Amino acid sequence: MTEYDLRVNADRLNRRIAELAEFGQLPGGGVSRVAFSEADVEGRRYAMSLMQNAGLNVRVDPAGNILGRREGGVAGEGVILVGSHIDTVPDGGAYDGALGSLAAIEVAHTLTHAGYRNRHPLDIVIWCDEESGLTGSRGFVGELSTDDMSRPGKDGTTLAEKVRRIGGDPARIHEAKPEPGSIAAYLELHVEQGSILHSEGIDVGIVQGFVGVQHYDVVIKGVPNHAGTTPMDRRSNALLTASELVLAVDRIVKSTPGRQVGTVGRLIVRPGAANVIPGQVDLTVELRDMDMTSLQPIWEAISKELEDLSAKHDTTVSYELRQSLEGTVTDPGLRAVIAEVSKDLGLSSTEMPSGAGHDAQKLTKVCSAGMIFVPSVGGVSHSPDEFTRPEDVANGANVLLQSVLKVDMM
Amino acid sequence: MTEYDLRVNADRLNRRIAELAEFGQLPGGGVSRVAFSEADVEGRRYAMSLMQNAGLNVRVDPAGNILGRREGGVAGEGVILVGSHIDTVPDGGAYDGALGSLAAIEVAHTLTHAGYRNRHPLDIVIWCDEESGLTGSRGFVGELSTDDMSRPGKDGTTLAEKVRRIGGDPARIHEAKPEPGSIAAYLELHVEQGSILHSEGIDVGIVQGFVGVQHYDVVIKGVPNHAGTTPMDRRSNALLTASELVLAVDRIVKSTPGRQVGTVGRLIVRPGAANVIPGQVDLTVELRDMDMTSLQPIWEAISKELEDLSAKHDTTVSYELRQSLEGTVTDPGLRAVIAEVSKDLGLSSTEMPSGAGHDAQKLTKVCSAGMIFVPSVGGVSHSPDEFTRPEDVANGANVLLQSVLKVDMM
Repeated sequence: MTEYDLRVNADRLNRRIAELAEFGQLPGGGVSRVAFSEADVEGRRYAMSLMQNAGLNVRVDPAGNILGRREGGVAGEGVILVGSHIDTVPDGGAYDGALGSLAAIEVAHTLTHAGYRNRHPLDIVIWCDEESGLTGSRGFVGELSTDDMSRPGKDGTTLAEKVRRIGGDPARIHEAKPEPGSIAAYLELHVEQGSILHSEGIDVGIVQGFVGVQHYDVVIKGVPNHAGTTPMDRRSNALLTASELVLAVDRIVKSTPGRQVGTVGRLIVRPGAANVIPGQVDLTVELRDMDMTSLQPIWEAISKELEDLSAKHDTTVSYELRQSLEGTVTDPGLRAVIAEVSKDLGLSSTEMPSGAGHDAQKLTKVCSAGMIFVPSVGGVSHSPDEFTRPEDVANGANVLLQSVLKVDMM
Repeated sequence: MTEYDLRVNADRLNRRIAELAEFGQLPGGGVSRVAFSEADVEGRRYAMSLMQNAGLNVRVDPAGNILGRREGGVAGEGVILVGSHIDTVPDGGAYDGALGSLAAIEVAHTLTHAGYRNRHPLDIVIWCDEESGLTGSRGFVGELSTDDMSRPGKDGTTLAEKVRRIGGDPARIHEAKPEPGSIAAYLELHVEQGSILHSEGIDVGIVQGFVGVQHYDVVIKGVPNHAGTTPMDRRSNALLTASELVLAVDRIVKSTPGRQVGTVGRLIVRPGAANVIPGQVDLTVELRDMDMTSLQPIWEAISKELEDLSAKHDTTVSYELRQSLEGTVTDPGLRAVIAEVSKDLGLSSTEMPSGAGHDAQKLTKVCSAGMIFVPSVGGVSHSPDEFTRPEDVANGANVLLQSVLKVDMM
């Protein structure tokens, strides 16, 4: 038996996914393991016990990331970093993040059990607070300053206080960043969160890169008058402008050639009473594409239409670009590794962009990064109904294991 | 000098409107004197002191309404009831309700000061909790049961507990209703809350009646997927259906002949995150007209379009009629009185429907009711910017005074 014959214990892995889901489980079946919550702290404790059980030397870095080390046998080789996150959105599912984290631990467990002597040091990582903005991986690549840490969040608590709560050391946040060149590769397994693999019957997605995101905050103002006493022709109704904008975003994004997406996901009507004409609507327009240059003409078309609609409905508008994240690409060498390994395992694969942001996207700043997707049934994500079949869980973990072995021999 | 020459003290009345606005005044100039709040209790105390000062015998009825009696000189004559409310919406203005309440007290004050001997008993009334659903006047006309009183509200507190807090006696709620035939007339002065009188330069509005209201709750369901990973052609976006519905309501209501209005005032997007496709939208459709039969074909057209839109966007819908209030008319005799008095005072007047609900609407169930409007500058209402000019305040109060005198002599 060679290392090519090594396989993860799929039953153990699927069982552990179910066990982790018990931390933060809601009566309706959803999982709320929001970063820094009591459930998150308990889930982290559970994960650390599994890491110790896999023979790893566990520590928490200044940014609150959990790292479990398996030392390498050859001096001077760069670290192979493998992992994901275990925090969830409120009322989320059991697979997003959890799959990749537990599979990474399973890879280490399998190597330890087999007595495999890795040449490179192997670090299994569980990133802190992925869902609210990639906090842990941003800290790891040096994007978080002590200022960022000490600014109070929406809940009035600073990130520093939260990170401290889970064993991080925000005063030493700059020490979270590894020495340049010290990491050989980062690999992450994740559920697709989209419906492409499942609907096309493909086993493995090889992530080409992460789409860029432009997020605009739009404010539309009308006059909040009495809905009974104000005749139809004397209204300044902010919701009429907003409704036409929602439809315009959908129409413009769909009618432009390409794979971009555009969404109005948040829309708040003020004052929001049945008997008051909407005086203000606050909404978000989010655009995503691998190629950010394609988003510019789309936003120009949307904002031009917004001005016209606002005049038509006697309202006023303002907007600002709230967030702009460039698209990033994964390492071609690692993509080739994943493709080869998948083929060797008898699995079908395809290259695809990731519409969602992931920690791997941040890791591209400090090392070669590769990412593996497995199918999400129906593409359902961030939902209690999120599901990935046990055989796809096993496939993904074995692709991850064999990719780690192949990189270790490079 | 005869009673026809009596006039209110307009300076005192305008000063008192400003004084009452201090109870619940917000830094931005708005007034939050929400029923049963500390500010409301203080405002009620202030109003009761003015009533006592006007020589009235003050009591609080079981429904929490404040009544101030000036006894009549002729046995067996029905009560003339005059008043309004002093509670406000959150962040409302200084005139809605306050004007009619303080003008009614001013009428009594003027009569007392002049030594006028009224034939009918005169009751000045301040209705309890108008804004959240005409609580006090509903109790007065017998529409509130002890069951209604003991059901917990949205804040977990029963109406009974709240009414008790302001001196009412919910266990005796049925005693709030007057003996049949014991009330000769109800008169109320109020700001228009619309822009018709102000924009057309008319001094006095004579309310023909109160429009009926149909309020539907609509729920649209899609699938709340990840906004980055779900291609545009695989979405089930509840907000697309909702946006087209908002526009359809506006279009159908406007294109049907008549004075009806239709509004989507509340619209809540779930889960409401910038990066999640809207999985559910809850919204209200409110239709109003004097003639309820005209609303039926309008709702039929809207609901048919809703079904079509829902199918088009791959969403599902459900709706229910949440509230249906019939339109009611005021007393023709009292309308004639108000018209005549206005003319005698040299004021222009017009008959008009009231788009808003008022306590007077409930009073039509137990007596003849009449209602007087004065202009709202710009039609602004339920807003810190609500304003009625001091001369219009004086005009309205004098029309009220002379109408009371005319009814007293009937």
